[in-house]
Amino acid sequence: MSKKNNKKFVSEITSMDEDFAQWYTDIVKKAELVDYSSVKGCMIIRPYGYALWENIQKYLDGKFKETGHENVYMPMFVPESLLQKEKDHVEGFAPEVAWVTKGGDNELTERLAVRPTSETLFCDHYSKIIESHKDLPKLYNQWCSVVRWEKTTRPFLRTTEFLWQEGHTAHATAEEAQAETIKMLNVYAEMMENFLAIPVVKGQKTEKEKFAGAEATYTIESLMHDGKALQSGTSHNFGDGFAKSFGIQYSDKNSQKQYVHQTSWGVTTRLIGAIIMVHGDDSGLVLPPRVAPTQVIIVPIAQHKEGVLEKAEELRERISKVARVKADTSDKMPGWKFNEWEMKGVPVRVEIGPKDIENNVAVLVRRDTREKEVVSLDNLETRITELLNEIHDNLYAKALQNREEKTFVAKTMEELKEIADTKPGFIKAMWCGDLACEEAIKEKAGLTSRCMPFEQEEITDTCVCCGKKAKSMVYWGKAY
Amino acid sequence: MSKKNNKKFVSEITSMDEDFAQWYTDIVKKAELVDYSSVKGCMIIRPYGYALWENIQKYLDGKFKETGHENVYMPMFVPESLLQKEKDHVEGFAPEVAWVTKGGDNELTERLAVRPTSETLFCDHYSKIIESHKDLPKLYNQWCSVVRWEKTTRPFLRTTEFLWQEGHTAHATAEEAQAETIKMLNVYAEMMENFLAIPVVKGQKTEKEKFAGAEATYTIESLMHDGKALQSGTSHNFGDGFAKSFGIQYSDKNSQKQYVHQTSWGVTTRLIGAIIMVHGDDSGLVLPPRVAPTQVIIVPIAQHKEGVLEKAEELRERISKVARVKADTSDKMPGWKFNEWEMKGVPVRVEIGPKDIENNVAVLVRRDTREKEVVSLDNLETRITELLNEIHDNLYAKALQNREEKTFVAKTMEELKEIADTKPGFIKAMWCGDLACEEAIKEKAGLTSRCMPFEQEEITDTCVCCGKKAKSMVYWGKAY
Repeated sequence: MSKKNNKKFVSEITSMDEDFAQWYTDIVKKAELVDYSSVKGCMIIRPYGYALWENIQKYLDGKFKETGHENVYMPMFVPESLLQKEKDHVEGFAPEVAWVTKGGDNELTERLAVRPTSETLFCDHYSKIIESHKDLPKLYNQWCSVVRWEKTTRPFLRTTEFLWQEGHTAHATAEEAQAETIKMLNVYAEMMENFLAIPVVKGQKTEKEKFAGAEATYTIESLMHDGKALQSGTSHNFGDGFAKSFGIQYSDKNSQKQYVHQTSWGVTTRLIGAIIMVHGDDSGLVLPPRVAPTQVIIVPIAQHKEGVLEKAEELRERISKVARVKADTSDKMPGWKFNEWEMKGVPVRVEIGPKDIENNVAVLVRRDTREKEVVSLDNLETRITELLNEIHDNLYAKALQNREEKTFVAKTMEELKEIADTKPGFIKAMWCGDLACEEAIKEKAGLTSRCMPFEQEEITDTCVCCGKKAKSMVYWGKAY
Repeated sequence: MSKKNNKKFVSEITSMDEDFAQWYTDIVKKAELVDYSSVKGCMIIRPYGYALWENIQKYLDGKFKETGHENVYMPMFVPESLLQKEKDHVEGFAPEVAWVTKGGDNELTERLAVRPTSETLFCDHYSKIIESHKDLPKLYNQWCSVVRWEKTTRPFLRTTEFLWQEGHTAHATAEEAQAETIKMLNVYAEMMENFLAIPVVKGQKTEKEKFAGAEATYTIESLMHDGKALQSGTSHNFGDGFAKSFGIQYSDKNSQKQYVHQTSWGVTTRLIGAIIMVHGDDSGLVLPPRVAPTQVIIVPIAQHKEGVLEKAEELRERISKVARVKADTSDKMPGWKFNEWEMKGVPVRVEIGPKDIENNVAVLVRRDTREKEVVSLDNLETRITELLNEIHDNLYAKALQNREEKTFVAKTMEELKEIADTKPGFIKAMWCGDLACEEAIKEKAGLTSRCMPFEQEEITDTCVCCGKKAKSMVYWGKAY
């Protein structure tokens, strides 16, 4: 079979080894995750893409509520004067703000930023509602969209508007704020690993890479199939910096005024980009079972034959007790259906035809390994439940293996540059802590510091760049 | 006891008969539903208010999915040229649009409307993704916020930004679009009555009151405690008007190009305003049990005595199996707790003290009627489940009675004016169908047409205004 013919049956997308960026773009379109809109840099999230976000939302929202957080809704506009109250913060965000200057027919006396993030709104609110130590902690979260005026955009990864959640909390002490910051980072890491099957490196951002206005920023970093890093979630400890700018004080048990200590933390729709780029293959999406909108697709074989459609419906009904399942009873050929549902990354396909019915079996096909197995219908639900867990574990193991194969060690600047030029991935190297070295590494090797991981190793005792005493091991990489 | 002293124990809010508008404002603040923000006309929805919206969302989203709808997310911006594509539509919305004119440091070449509604975005998308009759129907919904530049605002009822859902569907035929329009109106009506305990009048809007760009608008109208009407949800049939403006065509079974027929429908956070104004009283909120974030509050009596807090926790654990329950174990006096949870409208209070424990009973207090009953702890869960349903039914019956008492009939213009001046409520009167009469009734009696109800009556056979042959009975009223 010629390559061209073969392609027709396998997929119509660019191969990932040929052109990873085009492969990504093909998938988001062909799997019907997004469509481009008439608004520059903004995407339309289609039902299949939005269902992924809904599942992530549901999972995380449950975890947020279990850990005592409450949802609120803040205005989407931030008056310019409010945005300017915290100096570092406004410097970080002002260059990428969309400004509303007109309401109806009237010029506004003060222009309004479409929220790029909501620290200033939460601080303003907290300054009004926090009075006593009895009001603390405040553990708020918001699900919404934010806007950052980006020059170059790519669906899910970098868009002018994106969906996210932003947690904003206020605490009586620095210790509590730090504990919250780390707790929420761990909530994110758990979600990545147990829900999206994506291993992460947890660590702290350098001064250069931290959030505008934060004392410390923590991050979870994941590695895509092409060896580029993706910052997948961040958690910030603000100390009392914002509290001082906004006058957020409480009376302690001795009736003394104290400033609160604050945190914020967020993940965005770019997680969908991570799912695509960590697990996908040349036939399309490969969805981790726990987040998949459809976990099992039933494809009837020879569905015109008596009893096949009825049996497919019976199996759908049975499987629906243990998994999210659909039966594709459209009049397309089975081969076409296989391709379509492979493109959409459905973890398990169930094939059922006249012979299978006769033998009281069905054929199960895994999306991740393409392995087929014949299962007795007596064990159908049990086997599907097991299989979904096996697929999750396998996807996680593969992603971890990819990360390990693409994690390198550099002891000298020459090694660092050589690896950066030839082997996409994480590079572990020692750093003295100086901005100058971080910038030199950016300039000479094109690498940014991804994080100072919690799990430190002492590769050498000197900075890879300047040779002075090393303070920390850093993961360096090229990032989305 | 003097009135002042009494007030201290009952509530700190204005009485509803004294000043209904102030009573409303007091409740939204004291029950901690919203806070005012630094952004003119925008509200902060606090955790207790947002929890109400989350419950409404969850209920409706379930109904939408049961009826085959899928969620999507469209950009929050609409380019001006896109907004202008449907003539009536842009005329209706342009005066109240917030415009983004600057992104980062750059003036935009085309200004962007912050979406006041998303018909134009959905139409643009549909024109790209609909090709064949096999692509129909498209049944999409979106949960988001929209912005309309309002001059005078009131929390939940009229705000510059508000939260809503907007359904947008495309169908092959006019009949299917009409069936969808009515189906979704019925979904709303069912939600109002069975979930929020608010009776509604279903009907059609007049030409004057219909949505900008619609062929027909249907509405559910409810009556607040003060006799003013609240448009609580609308469902629009667009016919093929938008399809022609945006070129949304499909190939039918004979490969002929046809225009689609479309609908849209929405409800907003103003439903929370309806809950307040239909059920509330002078002690605060009264929440219908099914939407209440907390359905049962346990208040321990003499909680310092041995075993009381433990028993309260035991009951909380038991009740949590059948209802959303909290135990208030703070160190406030029980009387203060009673007031606080009455202000927040929690449907059932459970009091448990040492004597109750001795007798194996608890005291249940209904928020709606204030009736107390002593219940054996053996029957606790059963009785609470029953009681929540009884409260729902009672709130619905009371709301219906209020509406019936405040629904009047006018046969002549004099009667109409007199009722409008003296008795707030719905007024049923006949109408010829002419805009001139509708405008005259607005001018002379200050009434707008709320709807032409599906359940028609023939009060007289002539128009209440001009005396010509009547076409329809109309509900007239003053509305929020």
